Amino acid sequence: METATKPERREAICGAVFELLGEVGYDRMSMDAVAARARASKATIYRAWENKPELVMEALTQRFGGSAEAPDTGSLRGDLASQLTAVCTVANGDDGAIVMGLLTAASRDAELARTLHQVLYDMKHSVYETILARAVERGEVPASADAGLLHELIHAMMLTRRLWGTCALLDEAYVNRVIDKILLPVLRQDA
Amino acid sequence: METATKPERREAICGAVFELLGEVGYDRMSMDAVAARARASKATIYRAWENKPELVMEALTQRFGGSAEAPDTGSLRGDLASQLTAVCTVANGDDGAIVMGLLTAASRDAELARTLHQVLYDMKHSVYETILARAVERGEVPASADAGLLHELIHAMMLTRRLWGTCALLDEAYVNRVIDKILLPVLRQDA
Repeated sequence: METATKPERREAICGAVFELLGEVGYDRMSMDAVAARARASKATIYRAWENKPELVMEALTQRFGGSAEAPDTGSLRGDLASQLTAVCTVANGDDGAIVMGLLTAASRDAELARTLHQVLYDMKHSVYETILARAVERGEVPASADAGLLHELIHAMMLTRRLWGTCALLDEAYVNRVIDKILLPVLRQDA
Repeated sequence: METATKPERREAICGAVFELLGEVGYDRMSMDAVAARARASKATIYRAWENKPELVMEALTQRFGGSAEAPDTGSLRGDLASQLTAVCTVANGDDGAIVMGLLTAASRDAELARTLHQVLYDMKHSVYETILARAVERGEVPASADAGLLHELIHAMMLTRRLWGTCALLDEAYVNRVIDKILLPVLRQDA
């Protein structure tokens, strides 16, 4: 990836990507349209990003990459509630709609699917490791508690609700049900 | 819904729907193309089905509706393994690809989303109630074990794996992990 384009210029271009994703969706968004929207030359765009998935990857990382800090409320239950509420807030908002549109496009585009999985899943994984490590330290769960399982469960439950258009149900009652009926029993089991 | 069209004729038309869904996808499948493929008149099609979601609903029900019988292996673990393996087999096959295509289209079509949810989720729910009722009777889980939770969990875990294109991982090891690490601890918890 070319680094000659200045950071603030890259940021503006990524902002244009998000605008266009919201307006026309991934399939109909062209690199040229991004250039036009960001008032950049096509040469600038193509020098900095090889293709559309790469450009979308940077836009996604910029938008979602920064928030990968684990909550630290002093209890496992509190940390899970804080994390799930944050995920729900994103899922219910404009960004959630854009992400669902990208997921839709990803079902026909393996490159985009890999990119999305990296930004939305892999890059968030440390949050769940941190939450669990603290819980193990406080003696709330056995050391065998599995951050991979926790992450996959939360991701799957949230994504599926959002996918079925039942995002209105991603509310506090749902968060509590997921925590008390699913996550805590799974995490507290012995190895 | 019109009942004058003979059952075997409806069946042939639904077969044509599935062929076309596999070939061109939901968005590009027209009612007229279904008529042509099934060698039926457009009048026949439009008399029997008001719109595309309705036609797809019947095709889906015909294809997936019949298999809603609960496994009965004599143990909760056996029943869950049997049910998950069946779900994985469908998800990994041609029908799974068609369903993912429909889900993709459903993200922009609330009517289709409702139809899909009905056929793929609501109509399957009794399977999970039957599995759990038998497990409660055998004393394997408390009477408070929640079939809604069980169904939602299995559905979410499978769908999300399939969605990310990691369907190759819907194998026996994954089935065992989901059962032993997630489903059984969740079902065995006290109310």
